[in-house]
Amino acid sequence: MSTKPGPRLNAQNINPNVVAAQYAVRGELAVKSEEYRAKLAKGDKDLPFDQVISANIGNPQQLDQKPITFFRQVLSLMENPLLLEHKDVLTNQLGYKTDVIERAEWLLSKVGSVGAYSASAGVPAIKESIAKFIERRDGFPADPSKIYLSGGASSGVNTLLNVICAGPKTGVLVPIPQYPLYTASLAVLNATCVPYYLDEAAGWGTDLDTIRTAHAKAKEAGTDVRALVVINPGNPTGASLPEDNIRAILDFAREEKLVVLADEVYQTNVFEGRFYSFKQVLRALQSENKDGKFDHQELASLHSVSKGMVGECGHRGGFFELVGFAPEVEAEIYKFVSITLCAPVVGQCMVELMVRPPVAGEPSYELYDREYSRIFNGLRERAVALHKAFSDMEGVECGTPQGSMYLFPTIRLPARAAEAAAKEGRKADEFYCLRLLEATGICVVPGSGFGQKEGTLHFRTTFLAPGTEWVGRIVDFHKKFMDEFR
Amino acid sequence: MSTKPGPRLNAQNINPNVVAAQYAVRGELAVKSEEYRAKLAKGDKDLPFDQVISANIGNPQQLDQKPITFFRQVLSLMENPLLLEHKDVLTNQLGYKTDVIERAEWLLSKVGSVGAYSASAGVPAIKESIAKFIERRDGFPADPSKIYLSGGASSGVNTLLNVICAGPKTGVLVPIPQYPLYTASLAVLNATCVPYYLDEAAGWGTDLDTIRTAHAKAKEAGTDVRALVVINPGNPTGASLPEDNIRAILDFAREEKLVVLADEVYQTNVFEGRFYSFKQVLRALQSENKDGKFDHQELASLHSVSKGMVGECGHRGGFFELVGFAPEVEAEIYKFVSITLCAPVVGQCMVELMVRPPVAGEPSYELYDREYSRIFNGLRERAVALHKAFSDMEGVECGTPQGSMYLFPTIRLPARAAEAAAKEGRKADEFYCLRLLEATGICVVPGSGFGQKEGTLHFRTTFLAPGTEWVGRIVDFHKKFMDEFR
Repeated sequence: MSTKPGPRLNAQNINPNVVAAQYAVRGELAVKSEEYRAKLAKGDKDLPFDQVISANIGNPQQLDQKPITFFRQVLSLMENPLLLEHKDVLTNQLGYKTDVIERAEWLLSKVGSVGAYSASAGVPAIKESIAKFIERRDGFPADPSKIYLSGGASSGVNTLLNVICAGPKTGVLVPIPQYPLYTASLAVLNATCVPYYLDEAAGWGTDLDTIRTAHAKAKEAGTDVRALVVINPGNPTGASLPEDNIRAILDFAREEKLVVLADEVYQTNVFEGRFYSFKQVLRALQSENKDGKFDHQELASLHSVSKGMVGECGHRGGFFELVGFAPEVEAEIYKFVSITLCAPVVGQCMVELMVRPPVAGEPSYELYDREYSRIFNGLRERAVALHKAFSDMEGVECGTPQGSMYLFPTIRLPARAAEAAAKEGRKADEFYCLRLLEATGICVVPGSGFGQKEGTLHFRTTFLAPGTEWVGRIVDFHKKFMDEFR
Repeated sequence: MSTKPGPRLNAQNINPNVVAAQYAVRGELAVKSEEYRAKLAKGDKDLPFDQVISANIGNPQQLDQKPITFFRQVLSLMENPLLLEHKDVLTNQLGYKTDVIERAEWLLSKVGSVGAYSASAGVPAIKESIAKFIERRDGFPADPSKIYLSGGASSGVNTLLNVICAGPKTGVLVPIPQYPLYTASLAVLNATCVPYYLDEAAGWGTDLDTIRTAHAKAKEAGTDVRALVVINPGNPTGASLPEDNIRAILDFAREEKLVVLADEVYQTNVFEGRFYSFKQVLRALQSENKDGKFDHQELASLHSVSKGMVGECGHRGGFFELVGFAPEVEAEIYKFVSITLCAPVVGQCMVELMVRPPVAGEPSYELYDREYSRIFNGLRERAVALHKAFSDMEGVECGTPQGSMYLFPTIRLPARAAEAAAKEGRKADEFYCLRLLEATGICVVPGSGFGQKEGTLHFRTTFLAPGTEWVGRIVDFHKKFMDEFR
């Protein structure tokens, strides 16, 4: 082998699991949209649009969203603690309230320098703040020693799946459609993804019969199904699960002895009803069932600073909480995170600020509350506007916005469009999204990137971009597309 | 299986590759040292020391090292760009020079918000700054499109090994002793570590015959050896490789068609001679050998903001540069990094500042230069003091400090110490280091955590801790230990 010319590594001899992984959110369309953006930045006038709108990725601050002032003021002091030698200047001339200064001083006393590695699982004091946040949210206590800071939720998912998956025999139930991190990570780990379809007719809720069937089928095929992923609120669907749905899932997980991975990064992006955490519902089930049948249920729930009204994805902050895991497994999780040393420390501080924002009566509260509400209302308004536009479009159907940052409409395209797509070797939804990008500069993700039922087509779009002009561009494009291929 | 009581996951059924991985740098001793630190913080007076010194990990800012002012001033503005509305206050009252403000404005114009995801491989403008830095360092051009920002060098190593390793048949040559990230990552990937011993008698240099023998033996055993790791300057050894050594390694890699992974995170921590990058030496070989025999050599070189005089490990910033990789393999690397979204954006900014610090004539240069030199000189002085202490200790031998942040002395312990260790089920060096921690609060890492030749014992200590009082504590402990077990 050492005499063959050309490089040593090629697509045939490298890790086949990496080659097999698919991740459309940042795939061909995303790359193309960046090329367009670069062209426009260079003053190119040949494109039929003057702006690229990255509606393919939940990246709030790339679009309209301004960071929350309190968070960033504290972080500026974490980066340059020497500023704290000028408190009068900070407060009298730069608009820093006293609670900003107090929080920074407190965090510095706990973190030391943000330039130093923290403990592997995160800064102990930040884990305590998270535990208190979970306690306030759920009404049940939380144990700081079961909390692990991570580089966004993605790195938490990666840690958990790495520990859980023991090769191709291991099966993990994953909702379809799903955020492709799960299928991609399972592919890299050469574990088996056991898909269960969400129920589009029921607002993309989880249907227990469907899960049960998928599980039974996989078990029959010899797969050792040991974990169940739930994304709530849903990505890409936006569905927000009611409490009884979560109870049913946990009861099923208990029956079948499945570890539950609850991806709850959109927990504050809820427009309809309220958010129920898996932890809260599990604790309720545990206290209701005195026979102890829920006592050994394993749950890992994940959260992040990337979404919600925080929207600080670039800081790569997040955490997961473990419930019911064996100490020997926790030790392996600890070892795994220690190999990557620690989550970014500024991101950890951002987590602390997210879970302990200013409260009523504190100097920064009023501004914080105003900024937070403006972001929340803006998201809801744009979701509603986008939804309205979709309901007026031929062949497009979309449930009402419930949560997260996305809409995931069904599209029915003419047969000739499918034929034209096939000629280019593309799926019909990919073809549609590519045309949309080329015509309007708006980048969305084809439903095939998340998985969808055979014979259905969708796309996922965020509702983060400011204004509604771009929504009009989608409507116009769609009309022309339908006319062209009718 | 679903009727057995207890949790679903246990050490027997989870990922055996994770279970098999070892990572001593943050292992038992590190955990114990953190417990002592917590005890002391609570006012405990029972311990025989009043301070824990974490000499187990290269974490400069946890110890003496102050961050460089220019870096942190710019980052404070990246976190809170609203401060730029008060430039007069910044410059007249807070000591921000104009180049700080200009750099922050430039970075903000390129990055947008540090709270937004960047492009998967990093902010394009930061990749351009890195390319220019490499060009200045090496005297050969660098291509920004071959540069990938990563969360510290660790995440870069993880990406590269994930792509390179295709199961147990894949072999990667790793120096022993080595920073255990390599063996741990190979264990997690279930690939084969092919160890080659460094030559302690030659200042821990690489001996080509040893590498050749290790390679041939592995090949004979059916292993597909496809990559060679070099850590230069060395960790834990501190060795800094001369140019001819690097030439010989590259020539061997070419002959045997091995991808070279050059871990160069300590490139500015060099006390003896100068640093030669693998990229520079490869480019020189390529231009000298007109027959093109080096043209297909694949090299990935890694760098980080964690070490050097920067010491900003908590920011998790780093990058790797690819040379000679096939485009189809680069595409897989891109996909892999895109699954984890992007490196922390503040960390990326820190990389930019590291590769483009103030230069002579710029307003912040004088202070930067003074801070940088003070850190460099402080490290060298402490290395020399520690080395001197070791040379006075019975049974301890240690080469002169050449580079990195570590000394890695050999220790010869009395047979009775080995027996006492065995009784506790420990390796003798582990036993020694545990006793050192218990007696002095100084945490170092046993040589077995990095690998060492059968029958030899070592430990790794950083020389980051301030002062020399703690060095005296090691000397005293060692004397008592030897007396006890003689």
